[in-house]
Formats: sequence, C-alpha cells, structure tokens
Amino acid sequence: MKKIEHIGIAVNDLEEANKIYAAVMGKPHYKKEAVVSEGVNTSFFEIGESKIELLAATSEDSAIAKSILKRGEGMHHIAFAVDDIEAEIKRLKNEGFQLLNEQPKTGADNKLVVFMHPKEANGVLIELCQEIR
Amino acid sequence: MKKIEHIGIAVNDLEEANKIYAAVMGKPHYKKEAVVSEGVNTSFFEIGESKIELLAATSEDSAIAKSILKRGEGMHHIAFAVDDIEAEIKRLKNEGFQLLNEQPKTGADNKLVVFMHPKEANGVLIELCQEIR
Repeated sequence: MKKIEHIGIAVNDLEEANKIYAAVMGKPHYKKEAVVSEGVNTSFFEIGESKIELLAATSEDSAIAKSILKRGEGMHHIAFAVDDIEAEIKRLKNEGFQLLNEQPKTGADNKLVVFMHPKEANGVLIELCQEIR
Repeated sequence: MKKIEHIGIAVNDLEEANKIYAAVMGKPHYKKEAVVSEGVNTSFFEIGESKIELLAATSEDSAIAKSILKRGEGMHHIAFAVDDIEAEIKRLKNEGFQLLNEQPKTGADNKLVVFMHPKEANGVLIELCQEIR
C-alpha cells in the first residue's frame, strides 16, 4: 500500500457536486470520465498525491445508485495505490480477507482494481488499484 | 488545501480494528491518542503522505458513538491539511459554506481543527486541520 490513491464520494448530481467541490478545494476538477461497465460518471480533483473522485450513477442498477438509496450521498470508498495488485490480492487472501472480485477489473483512470468486502474492514469499502502499465 | 491529512474511520472496538487495519495496511498503527474533549480513543496508521485514523467512542455522548448508532461503523470524515486555518475559514465562509465551529479547536495529533457541515458537501464531513506550531 503506497498511498491513498483517491476517496470516492457518491453524489446525486455530478455537475452540482463539481461546483461544490471546486469551491471547497479552491480549484476545479481536472477531468471527467464515464465508466460504462460500472454505470457511473466520475470527476476528479487533485489534492497532494491523492484525488477526490465524485461518482454519479447513470442507471438504477449502478452500485452508486444503490448506495445512495441505502445511505444517502457521502463517502463511498477509499482506494489505496499498490505496485503489484496480484501480489496484494495474494497477501490479503493469506491474511484471511474476502475480496469482492477475485480477478482485477478495469476501473476509471487507467487502473486495475479490486475491492474488499466492507464487512471485513469495519464497514469501509476498500479498493486496491494499480496503474495499467 | 495541501493534502489529505487523514481519513477518520468510526469503529466499535479499537483493539479489534487495530488488528484488522494492521493486516490490511501490512504494518501496525504507529501511535494511540485519547482525545478526552471529544470522548474518543484514536489510533493512527501511516499511508504515503496521509494517515488512517481509527476512532472509538469512550462515552455514549461522543459524536462517534452517535454516528455508529445512526450509520454503523465506517468512514466518518475526511481531513484536509491547510497551512493557515484562519485564512481557509475566511475563504470558505466567503464561498458561502457553514462551519460547525467558527473558532478552530484542538484536535488529536497536535492539530487545530474546524469542521464543515456534511449537508454542505454532499453528505461528507470535512475537517480542515493545521499543525499547531
């Protein structure tokens, strides 16, 4: 685990949230990206070595839509950057953790990603992500 | 806003959570601290330029106890490091944001802290913190 790669925040309206976070952070988002496979539109703000990722659902089936329905808007996940996602998956499985996907999948921002079940980490949805090289 | 200073995670049992996060992060917490004024015991893990702060309530009146009662364990707040907390408070008030405390108060880890209301930032409790010099 090298650093906090990003914090994911579930929002209802991406344009509205972009304005709010631009005012909080003191600078605008630097990119937008649609992740069709996850049913989300995202935008990113830089903060030190990390990012804030705003996530808005594009369909009712999206995990973000379900999360907002259950818990409202707010912090959705923490993503840690790793050098070697396969090695980290192996390490975490050896520690007894359960992963939501056994094989890394392609996420936003040119990353291979894997998620740990929130029940394994005190209710926190943890993502590991590795830059696709 | 310089960097993500820490992510605060509300937990029921600090000792148990320390074990879980040591296994996730691949290293133990580096310090514990009681914040009597907030009714919490905390522990800290380093991750890049940031920290993970686990928070367990020491009384039913603690904000952490109330948060867990309402939403369960999980991500509680994001803290951004700032150089000049008074200047950031002024900037955010000029942007129209409401702060939970107008005057910075002393938090864990030798910091002056101020919180923004979660309703102002899509359900996210945002803390600003400045090192006490």
